[in-house]
Amino acid sequence: MFKRFSGASKAKEALLEHCHPVMRTVTLACKEASWRVVSQDIISQLDLPGLDRAAMDGYAVRSTDTKGARPSSPVFLENFMPIRTGMEVPEDYDAVVMLEDSRLREDALEITAEVHAYRNVSRIGEDIRQGDVVFREGHTLRPPDIALLSALGICSVQVYELPKVAIIPTGGELVPIGAGPLKTGEAYEINGLMTELYLKKWGASTKREDIVPDDPKRIREAIASNQDADMIIMIGGTSVGEKDYAPRILNEMGELFIHGVRLQPGKPTAFAQVGSTLVVCLPGYPVAALADLYLFVRPALKKMAHQSDFLPKIRARLARKIPSRPGYLSMVRVALRDGTAEPIMTSGAGILSSVARADGYVIVPEEFEGFEKGENVEVNLFE
Amino acid sequence: MFKRFSGASKAKEALLEHCHPVMRTVTLACKEASWRVVSQDIISQLDLPGLDRAAMDGYAVRSTDTKGARPSSPVFLENFMPIRTGMEVPEDYDAVVMLEDSRLREDALEITAEVHAYRNVSRIGEDIRQGDVVFREGHTLRPPDIALLSALGICSVQVYELPKVAIIPTGGELVPIGAGPLKTGEAYEINGLMTELYLKKWGASTKREDIVPDDPKRIREAIASNQDADMIIMIGGTSVGEKDYAPRILNEMGELFIHGVRLQPGKPTAFAQVGSTLVVCLPGYPVAALADLYLFVRPALKKMAHQSDFLPKIRARLARKIPSRPGYLSMVRVALRDGTAEPIMTSGAGILSSVARADGYVIVPEEFEGFEKGENVEVNLFE
Repeated sequence: MFKRFSGASKAKEALLEHCHPVMRTVTLACKEASWRVVSQDIISQLDLPGLDRAAMDGYAVRSTDTKGARPSSPVFLENFMPIRTGMEVPEDYDAVVMLEDSRLREDALEITAEVHAYRNVSRIGEDIRQGDVVFREGHTLRPPDIALLSALGICSVQVYELPKVAIIPTGGELVPIGAGPLKTGEAYEINGLMTELYLKKWGASTKREDIVPDDPKRIREAIASNQDADMIIMIGGTSVGEKDYAPRILNEMGELFIHGVRLQPGKPTAFAQVGSTLVVCLPGYPVAALADLYLFVRPALKKMAHQSDFLPKIRARLARKIPSRPGYLSMVRVALRDGTAEPIMTSGAGILSSVARADGYVIVPEEFEGFEKGENVEVNLFE
Repeated sequence: MFKRFSGASKAKEALLEHCHPVMRTVTLACKEASWRVVSQDIISQLDLPGLDRAAMDGYAVRSTDTKGARPSSPVFLENFMPIRTGMEVPEDYDAVVMLEDSRLREDALEITAEVHAYRNVSRIGEDIRQGDVVFREGHTLRPPDIALLSALGICSVQVYELPKVAIIPTGGELVPIGAGPLKTGEAYEINGLMTELYLKKWGASTKREDIVPDDPKRIREAIASNQDADMIIMIGGTSVGEKDYAPRILNEMGELFIHGVRLQPGKPTAFAQVGSTLVVCLPGYPVAALADLYLFVRPALKKMAHQSDFLPKIRARLARKIPSRPGYLSMVRVALRDGTAEPIMTSGAGILSSVARADGYVIVPEEFEGFEKGENVEVNLFE
């Protein structure tokens, strides 16, 4: 029997309570640091721009000289200097007249627009001042942020390490992908690859172990030898059958705090803590494993990585009714067509083609018995 | 003067008309093919599952023997066989009774639930049948799709090549990032790096050229030597000043079909076609370059890559009014705080710190004069 049979929201809450942001840091070249999280405030040593510079091609002028200039009453200047965008505005001058508003005469510049002080001038430090905090601890660096750091002459940056995740597929019936035609009763180990591809996308440093057979000793060894990981993901053997060793072993090696979740698909899910390593046991059925990855592993990983668990969503009308078992949280795959969401109903958590045809999923919360045809629902898009 | 001064929507339309999906293909190992687009229908050579197999741990039985079994009137079977999830259901049997509904007695199996034919059995081909189209041409492969292909024994897949993009930064004032302290009038070349980081994220194969000085011959050479690219992105020198050579050269080498766009920031934008290569000229101001990347380059690249230009969005209330120049499309950076969007108003397209503080941007269409405080707006999130 399942040790505890928990609601899906409670299970997620318990998982997140047991997981902590990774505090190890690493220094990276800025150009390698996209989408990484800075681990300390970054202070600028420079002003940006470093000097007053022209923001337009035109002529550097003294703004006081331009008073009253209009197309109908141009002003003629003797003191001026041609200037290009980005060039330093020379001392004595404090504004730039655009090419469009000026015409070079023999000895003078005819201008047809009045400019106030610092018009068309990027002033020293107007972007960033020396001593400013450019990015606070916890900021995720995007390409324009990398560009800003580079503009400030900052070429390397201290960021948090990516969470380390070990992936351990278990099951005597499994053979590696590409190992040749299957014998009766064998199956390719596909969940480990699916898990690894998502975890890399979501920002983990991954290590995929070889398939571990249904042997308590070998399972124990695989867990023990990955205690340097922040998270271990075990796949398969998580239910209550004779050979479902993982939960029992985890209960001996550490604390099995969730076993069995009211989630469809994904009931035989287990969470444990062994030493400082969080262990998530995914069911062997691929659709159930996928549900666990999105509902539990992703938020846990994002918390470890100091990032928010934002998922792209769109709203759509349901093309058909979705029934759902009360008390259970259901993840229902849907295909999107012309703004409607078509539920893909299948009997089994093993039916991967239901995901192949799906664009995303709808969550039916525990307290609902489903959604009616025509209801406006939120669709989480599969990445 | 700008050759043509186009509305931003018209400019985007013209750009997309000039760009075509890349038809070159490449064969990749499945595990390397995540988020790639399949270039031909993939047909299954196998049934999945390949045989009738148990969907639960329990006992294989003949469904007709179980008639009437209930907790209050159990049925005792002599013909049965213990079976684990995934194992073949032996001939003579057609259903599986779950462990929970059964109890092994001395010579017989006591069962307390009636099962109909194929109950708890994954039937041969119920996921995919031999000859089924697994994925159609144009499908983007996600990790569960890779898992499905692997389950079908398919280890490699033909996909479209990534669009090839050459990035050419221009400007005599530019020095490479990390080249040491700047002299007066110099600036680090940061737009090329920002552009490359986004293009990689968005699915391009990129090549970043060295900085090209303001020299028509060198600019011409740089364009000519990248005619094998699907797209060239030139950065800087795109306006109408004396040294803004790129548009003039492009007009000689091919067709300059857009020069000057009513976009704020991003006015000095140009699009050209040279041979079969699309050329996009980005302004040298980083915020304007960023606007062009999101509004023009991303949709063009996605079209070349056979993918949709879906951007994650959320809705938020404006914390302050956004003014906007009528006739211009404006990209206004906003910071999100507790469900409200705070516009970040800055004078210049050079102010990168305005992006550092932004979570996304709001588009004010050409026909609007801005948005009022409190309006519910769509925020595109920066990646």
